[in-house]
Amino acid sequence: MRLEAILEGLERREPAALARAISLVENQRDGFERVLSHVHARLRRGGTRRIGITGPPGAGKSTLTERLIQQFRSQELRVGVVAVDPTSPFTGGALLGDRIRMEAASLDPNVFIRSMATRGARGGLATTTEEVTDLLEAFGFDRILLETVGVGQTELDIARTAETTVLVLVPESGDGIQTLKAGVMEIADIYVINKSDRPGADKLRQEIEVMLGIRQGNAFRHVAPHHAPSPRAPRPTDRTASTVRPGEGWEPPVIATVASRGEGVAELVQALDRHYVYLEAGGLLAGRRRRRLAQRTRAVLERAVQHWISEATRAEELLQRRLDDVTDGRRSPYDVAAEILDQVKTGALR
Amino acid sequence: MRLEAILEGLERREPAALARAISLVENQRDGFERVLSHVHARLRRGGTRRIGITGPPGAGKSTLTERLIQQFRSQELRVGVVAVDPTSPFTGGALLGDRIRMEAASLDPNVFIRSMATRGARGGLATTTEEVTDLLEAFGFDRILLETVGVGQTELDIARTAETTVLVLVPESGDGIQTLKAGVMEIADIYVINKSDRPGADKLRQEIEVMLGIRQGNAFRHVAPHHAPSPRAPRPTDRTASTVRPGEGWEPPVIATVASRGEGVAELVQALDRHYVYLEAGGLLAGRRRRRLAQRTRAVLERAVQHWISEATRAEELLQRRLDDVTDGRRSPYDVAAEILDQVKTGALR
Repeated sequence: MRLEAILEGLERREPAALARAISLVENQRDGFERVLSHVHARLRRGGTRRIGITGPPGAGKSTLTERLIQQFRSQELRVGVVAVDPTSPFTGGALLGDRIRMEAASLDPNVFIRSMATRGARGGLATTTEEVTDLLEAFGFDRILLETVGVGQTELDIARTAETTVLVLVPESGDGIQTLKAGVMEIADIYVINKSDRPGADKLRQEIEVMLGIRQGNAFRHVAPHHAPSPRAPRPTDRTASTVRPGEGWEPPVIATVASRGEGVAELVQALDRHYVYLEAGGLLAGRRRRRLAQRTRAVLERAVQHWISEATRAEELLQRRLDDVTDGRRSPYDVAAEILDQVKTGALR
Repeated sequence: MRLEAILEGLERREPAALARAISLVENQRDGFERVLSHVHARLRRGGTRRIGITGPPGAGKSTLTERLIQQFRSQELRVGVVAVDPTSPFTGGALLGDRIRMEAASLDPNVFIRSMATRGARGGLATTTEEVTDLLEAFGFDRILLETVGVGQTELDIARTAETTVLVLVPESGDGIQTLKAGVMEIADIYVINKSDRPGADKLRQEIEVMLGIRQGNAFRHVAPHHAPSPRAPRPTDRTASTVRPGEGWEPPVIATVASRGEGVAELVQALDRHYVYLEAGGLLAGRRRRRLAQRTRAVLERAVQHWISEATRAEELLQRRLDDVTDGRRSPYDVAAEILDQVKTGALR
């Protein structure tokens, strides 16, 4: 009944229903999969664009996001924002405060901002974030900004589920650009140098462009989702190899902004449009979407199986019975897990 | 055969065999579970102490770890270190450099230092880290330091698998102590204020002590593993409630150190000894160990089931067959996952 009310509210585009649906999904409460199944049939096939915004803490991603919202609103586009809070338990507080101010500032009914805490969503944060994004898409937002503070692999993965990924750096990042872990620089479709009125902006631009030049000449651009780039040395001849990813042919622009003053934001919006047109013209959107859904289905299956195993009373009983043996060293966790898995396989845990 | 050689090498305490066993486990290569099963039977029941060291980046954890190694070595104890590198792709490089220097510096055969990258071990890092720790324990190390850079929930979880958890802060942390996410301050058995010759050390000590005072008076100390603390307001009467955790009765000391000069490190070692005696006297070690093994068995089972599902050709076939429906919106990932799970349950995927 309550679930029905949420579904009806979503149909009528009531923000309150959206907020409740999101909470349901975020906490995986009873019925959340039914809501998502319902929403899935209503996803727009085109029209909504998902834009990932990531970068190190302090790069000004929130300010940039606010400016993008303004730009999109001036085009009468409806904007949803999913902001993934940092996993860092040591820096979380202050950033969360920022975020709450931002949510409060949003009184425009055509803007919906939702923060997601990483705490409590262990292991499944990427999936849950995508599910919340689906809710926003089904609700009819034209642009969805996925802002991740980018302190962990998960946050990168989330940014990467967007059609276009924006990596926000600041001049101070220049010193560290060489030490960035492999895979970080390669995810971006668009680079933003924010706070570009500070010293070092030109140097950072050069460094990025040098790196992009190197990338053009080798297979480094191929970064399969969720896999580290191949450790082999770059070889110019690799370019023609089958490892070239669909994005080949797009030259990532480097855009200077001063988000606090709104400078460069119009250029960023233009670059976003250009990238979308590029994806669409090359027929790349459909392929991306299909891969995303395949991966989502696998993730949902994994979650369902885990849930089932942890709830299967016979698995838990067997585990408890074997625990003395494990504690005494007579059996190992691996033997016991193998025994239970055997029972799973034969359907004995049914 | 190769596996046999590793097992024999472990028996003979050959460091090369240990290094190979760790690589096997870290990368979950064929046979890794057999190695772990073998090791499990050889885990020492007592004698080895696992010490978790966590804290924000820049707190000086590596330096402190080096000093602890020196202290333990002066007591002729054999020391293993598992250092979990930051998940942050934006700051990883520099810290990894530090670590490599530290590994190179360790020429003492009674000291073994191993870094673990978080990249690539997604979802299972806590389990893998514990497994590597088991290898070190079976190899005969007396003290095992689990150093985590503490930028994520996973790193906290890892620190928490130790018998004693040390939280390292610096005077600069004082400003942020109020904003630390719930659950961070509560995990520590021992607080260290490192770089305590800097301004603000006294203020930080006071803040920690005030917080500890508050904690003594309410149920806030109860932090169930992997669960956020209850959001309800602290009530003094809660102390007698069943939510009091086994650690109740231990008053976490606050120790000032200047690790770079070795100051305070002897006091820290004494505090570590006191905490271990406290755990042992209260019969708390056995209970912790049992809970840890139960949880490990569950994690290993989850991993095994996931692996099986992802390798089950019939599950993947079914998923691929349904993908067109999902892409077209006729079926949702949730319907398809439910269908496959049904087949798992009935043993049809056997």
